[in-house]
Amino acid sequence: MTSQVSPSASQASLAIGQRSLGDPSVRFPLWPPLTSGCPVTSTDSVSYPVEVDYAYDEVPAGLFTTAPGRPRGHERWAPLLPPLRAPGLGEGGTPLVPLGDGLWIKDESRNPTWSHKDRINRVTVSAAVGAGAQGIVVASSGNHGASAAAYAARAGLRCVVIGSAGRPPAVDAFLRAYGAVVLPVPEDARWPLLRRIVERFGYHPVSNVTPTHTGHAFGPEGYKTLAYEIYTELGVPAAVFLPTGYGELLFGVWKGFAELVTLGLADRVPRLYSCEPEAGGPLAAAVRDGVPATRVPVGETAAYAIDCAVGGYRGVVALRESGGHPLLVSDQRMAAARAELARAGLWAELSAAAGLAGYRQLGQAVVEGPVVCVSTSSGFKDRDLLDSAVAADVDPEDWAEVERRVGGG
Amino acid sequence: MTSQVSPSASQASLAIGQRSLGDPSVRFPLWPPLTSGCPVTSTDSVSYPVEVDYAYDEVPAGLFTTAPGRPRGHERWAPLLPPLRAPGLGEGGTPLVPLGDGLWIKDESRNPTWSHKDRINRVTVSAAVGAGAQGIVVASSGNHGASAAAYAARAGLRCVVIGSAGRPPAVDAFLRAYGAVVLPVPEDARWPLLRRIVERFGYHPVSNVTPTHTGHAFGPEGYKTLAYEIYTELGVPAAVFLPTGYGELLFGVWKGFAELVTLGLADRVPRLYSCEPEAGGPLAAAVRDGVPATRVPVGETAAYAIDCAVGGYRGVVALRESGGHPLLVSDQRMAAARAELARAGLWAELSAAAGLAGYRQLGQAVVEGPVVCVSTSSGFKDRDLLDSAVAADVDPEDWAEVERRVGGG
Repeated sequence: MTSQVSPSASQASLAIGQRSLGDPSVRFPLWPPLTSGCPVTSTDSVSYPVEVDYAYDEVPAGLFTTAPGRPRGHERWAPLLPPLRAPGLGEGGTPLVPLGDGLWIKDESRNPTWSHKDRINRVTVSAAVGAGAQGIVVASSGNHGASAAAYAARAGLRCVVIGSAGRPPAVDAFLRAYGAVVLPVPEDARWPLLRRIVERFGYHPVSNVTPTHTGHAFGPEGYKTLAYEIYTELGVPAAVFLPTGYGELLFGVWKGFAELVTLGLADRVPRLYSCEPEAGGPLAAAVRDGVPATRVPVGETAAYAIDCAVGGYRGVVALRESGGHPLLVSDQRMAAARAELARAGLWAELSAAAGLAGYRQLGQAVVEGPVVCVSTSSGFKDRDLLDSAVAADVDPEDWAEVERRVGGG
Repeated sequence: MTSQVSPSASQASLAIGQRSLGDPSVRFPLWPPLTSGCPVTSTDSVSYPVEVDYAYDEVPAGLFTTAPGRPRGHERWAPLLPPLRAPGLGEGGTPLVPLGDGLWIKDESRNPTWSHKDRINRVTVSAAVGAGAQGIVVASSGNHGASAAAYAARAGLRCVVIGSAGRPPAVDAFLRAYGAVVLPVPEDARWPLLRRIVERFGYHPVSNVTPTHTGHAFGPEGYKTLAYEIYTELGVPAAVFLPTGYGELLFGVWKGFAELVTLGLADRVPRLYSCEPEAGGPLAAAVRDGVPATRVPVGETAAYAIDCAVGGYRGVVALRESGGHPLLVSDQRMAAARAELARAGLWAELSAAAGLAGYRQLGQAVVEGPVVCVSTSSGFKDRDLLDSAVAADVDPEDWAEVERRVGGG
């Protein structure tokens, strides 16, 4: 029996170079990937990111209408991604789960390491392979580190994860499984140590190393596939609500829809809403102050995956160009949204529920048309995973007690 | 912007009735679903399961060749499943991840609750809704309970999970998120209590209640979709290796391929290999003894998801009809397979690695052609999740120590 649907050979990337977000006329060759933002336009106070440009006029006809033989993986979108030099794990292709009333949850816990970060790490580890690095280094105590470790393992690269105290209980086991070297250090020491490891070992950084956030030039390109997937299923929704830390996810989703407009496939982009913990919120502060990026104090929040003190210009671009708005959500609202998702059968991390929390806070009357809330990760990743009480044993002969519990009394 | 690919309305089920595996001429109407095996052919020592029959001559042309608008969910295969009365979560549609040399891993950790059990629970909870039950009850300390709880929550049914000591650390948080009632009781008390709750509350059982395993009549139908997915991507592989507990997964995968032969789409089924922990292995014992199902003592094993003392006739049928074989694998081999998967970027539960462990044990020379090993669940589910040491803090100023750790010295 031969294959029913031939897997098409991976198509070539149409990436043609890097371009500064600080000034789009400032261009760089595609290689090496810039991991410290734009060296031309960045200042002492603001670091501008770099993005990837493509030969859009060469995008194959049918890229968005022909369903693939294999259902999953960045390969489907290879023309509009940087070169995929590292092997994949079938990242992306996550379902849109309906919650009724035109509301859809994009369940990113269905990725290879159970968070949206796999979309970015297929791309950044590919950059590391393309750049000839022997390893990667990442500062993360959660999803990003685990995902980077998985892709590094698959590509045969070494991986150093610089963590901090307060890592979720399962994360060490997770990282160890992939063979990563974990270096827990005090919070403030993470980025200086990362830079030093880059310099000493030549490892490729897949975390930020600049004063305001720029991250990896290629990384957010991986998030564009979220927009492509939403488009092929729903068309262009009215709005997308996204948990927001450094704004890379926000930017990637905006850019993906913007490319669909460039390609003549869509006539508009959805309005994007960034959902940050109200304990911090550097993007909301930057928008309020009319600056490209800023730094804020961060108070107490359990949404550790998005509790950023510093923002980046990508988020400002995405909100401005989509006509969107920044939202600040409380831990209480995130917990309520997490509970709402669980009642619908989706167990999300607290931070992952920020998108739905933002939508509920704004009120659905504000948005007319289909709405997508991105849920970024699984409930297994939460710090408070093991804090709540374990169910007490019950004596099976004590039928009154069984009845009380089953009856909810 | 309108939808690019219209989601086709869910197609109707072609299920026409239930049929005994003990004697295929013994038939029952489709409703109510039989949850205690075949009442006609079962004896005091062997309980025969019941399966679902379909109007195969009415299967829509193109069911297996037309890629769906929405990529995920049992809806795609609705004609060949019992009626989908409970809402879905985009179950199935998991990727085949290549490991080289014609070996593919079917990564079932990419399901809604991160295990293969979602394929079965969409179907059993649908049966509960169809039967008019107000709740479901399940005996499980792991994947099956969590999955049943998620689908029950989504369907608005109550869910009672009868657990036992030695539950994995994350499972209580998992079940509580979905609002399930957890009743931890001694191991032996689980099934009598389950029966009593069924009788008293009228809850629909989605666990076994018979002396040898029969389980739910509709359940294994949900596993057929695994075969359909493998077929649409790879055609018919040479062999499939599966972690095996009660043999429901094994039977479902066999039946899916057998249906493709019935429909004239395939000319053979793959050889199936059941992979049980060598500490137990009721299916291997039944095959050895030439009986439909048997009971064995179970020694120490960490593969808690498949450490069954009792088997069922479904497994015997699947091995016999596919020309397959039972394999017994040690914990050591499962741990080695789990490590091999992690090096490839896939973090699996120990039990989930039993398929690959069986394949490595048999030796690849035995099988000619593409091989699929099913990896059933995520590493987050293991009991020993938190047993291993947490990485020690490092002083970022102690560069010699950093170098030693990064260098692997």
